[in-house]
Amino acid sequence: MEAQLKSCRILTGVKPTGDLHLGNYVGAIKPLIKFSQVSQQETFFLCADWHSLAAKEITFSISDSVSSLIAAVIALGFDTKESNGIFIQSHYPQLLELYWYFARFINTGLLERAHAYKASVQENTPVSLSLFSYPVLMAADITLFGSNKVPVGKDQAQHLEYTSDILKSFHYGIGKEIFPMPEAIFQETPEILGTDGIHKMSKSRNNTLPLFAEPKKIEKIIKSLPTDSKTMEEPKDPLKTSIFLLLKSFASEDRVNDMSQKLQQGNYGYGHAKQDLFFAFEDTFGGEVRKRYLELKKYPEDLRILLQKYEQKGHEIANQKIQEIRESLDLNAFLF
Amino acid sequence: MEAQLKSCRILTGVKPTGDLHLGNYVGAIKPLIKFSQVSQQETFFLCADWHSLAAKEITFSISDSVSSLIAAVIALGFDTKESNGIFIQSHYPQLLELYWYFARFINTGLLERAHAYKASVQENTPVSLSLFSYPVLMAADITLFGSNKVPVGKDQAQHLEYTSDILKSFHYGIGKEIFPMPEAIFQETPEILGTDGIHKMSKSRNNTLPLFAEPKKIEKIIKSLPTDSKTMEEPKDPLKTSIFLLLKSFASEDRVNDMSQKLQQGNYGYGHAKQDLFFAFEDTFGGEVRKRYLELKKYPEDLRILLQKYEQKGHEIANQKIQEIRESLDLNAFLF
Repeated sequence: MEAQLKSCRILTGVKPTGDLHLGNYVGAIKPLIKFSQVSQQETFFLCADWHSLAAKEITFSISDSVSSLIAAVIALGFDTKESNGIFIQSHYPQLLELYWYFARFINTGLLERAHAYKASVQENTPVSLSLFSYPVLMAADITLFGSNKVPVGKDQAQHLEYTSDILKSFHYGIGKEIFPMPEAIFQETPEILGTDGIHKMSKSRNNTLPLFAEPKKIEKIIKSLPTDSKTMEEPKDPLKTSIFLLLKSFASEDRVNDMSQKLQQGNYGYGHAKQDLFFAFEDTFGGEVRKRYLELKKYPEDLRILLQKYEQKGHEIANQKIQEIRESLDLNAFLF
Repeated sequence: MEAQLKSCRILTGVKPTGDLHLGNYVGAIKPLIKFSQVSQQETFFLCADWHSLAAKEITFSISDSVSSLIAAVIALGFDTKESNGIFIQSHYPQLLELYWYFARFINTGLLERAHAYKASVQENTPVSLSLFSYPVLMAADITLFGSNKVPVGKDQAQHLEYTSDILKSFHYGIGKEIFPMPEAIFQETPEILGTDGIHKMSKSRNNTLPLFAEPKKIEKIIKSLPTDSKTMEEPKDPLKTSIFLLLKSFASEDRVNDMSQKLQQGNYGYGHAKQDLFFAFEDTFGGEVRKRYLELKKYPEDLRILLQKYEQKGHEIANQKIQEIRESLDLNAFLF
């Protein structure tokens, strides 16, 4: 993969939505961190707080979620080299300016075909202008910083199709190619089973494994994971064991193979498996990682310095692109 | 009127759309200039170039239209005192940020009831997202700079109703009153007859009296105004004489009364009336006014200095409002 992605600019947007849990890690943060560590490749992380705002109900602090998300990404190993970037969406009004320039060249018909809009119409719930037009802001997110590769889960393929459509109309309309056409990096997005052993892990179901809770709390949640009535001695099918499925979503291959074998051999009870899951969890999210996360949250000065450096770079890229567009659109009178 | 408008902040937006003609002056520029001259009252002029961009076809240079419009407004007497303001819309991304904050609290149903949208749907022409959502940008225009009075023609009453609706939803949604509720100053918007004597004056009909053309060209256009076959001696009905109607739209009361009497008395031919119209036109738009306009266009340095001063003020007002909203929306993480 490394060779294929050489000299790419990859953009990942993540919506800050409250306390982070294992589902967030597996779906968004883990791949982002992996990308950031590949040399000769620029990885941009957009913390999409304007999209958090578009939610129907906001049950969390957006500003706190922003700092938690960025602290987590860094504590978990995002490579803060100069060629990468971390950008807070709402610090870039250029995104909305680009949205407006896109808006001239796209028709409402396109937006009426978007999944989220259709779903709301079917449910007979009113649609806000932010929900209706969010594919346009998303297209601006994806393109403004000049990214040419976007990791997407299969359920997000439409976003990128929309971005391509919008970008084509826009380039045709202004008669100039301003942005590279972004390509998808399709990703497996495994569904993480919640701690109830039944539903997908999600805050609304209250069945999450929080990433940075106290070890005691983590241990308690893991100990309470539901199991069937198999005895310790009986062999067990790993793929039917929720403990194993949780481990598999984040742990090293060694640990995963180890538990898989033990479960199949028997003489390995659910209690043992839970203990091993807890150790693996602590290895990934505990110790130095948790300490760094809590430090960054408590003393955000390091974060501020890093973010300011990245923000300067983000604004340079954004301003240069907007300037190029303004020239094409003849919007250049008396710029100061 | 002066007493009624004391300590008001009045905002007038004008769309730059190519060379200015008498219709533009009477409809927008003349009242704007009058407002600017009232003491103890702040008059803000928003040069709405983003709205020019939203037109289906752009047949003029936007940047040149911006500088022509501002030069005209100043040459014609806009009072450039400190408490007034001239703001170029596209220099304020805060307007689009406000648009986005509004967008969370308004539903597409509201926008589907707008006149321009309905007209396009009836004509079966595709509607761009800019056309669909322009009432939201207009609401941002009207409110961002804290204006509490907005001069509107009767055909624009819906804009202000939309702004009130949007503002109410927004204030309710964020639980705070950020902006004053703007009130309309209803204005007569007399329809200016074109030089063909038949249709409304408009660029698309090519029947305009341009404000700052060469005197010879103006004289030629005025001499070609259509008339009926009445002889010089016959008395004439001023209100059926297009020459008089044009004069009435811009000239001083004295001149208007004078021509009205002469026409009714008779022994005053169309040639005389045309001559008088030309003199009146030159008195208002020629001489020092035309000279100043041409100078400002040719050497825009004076304009730059003035606009920069106003821009600083505009950004102060806009940033303060946006900051207040960001606090209410909990969008305050790591602001630099």
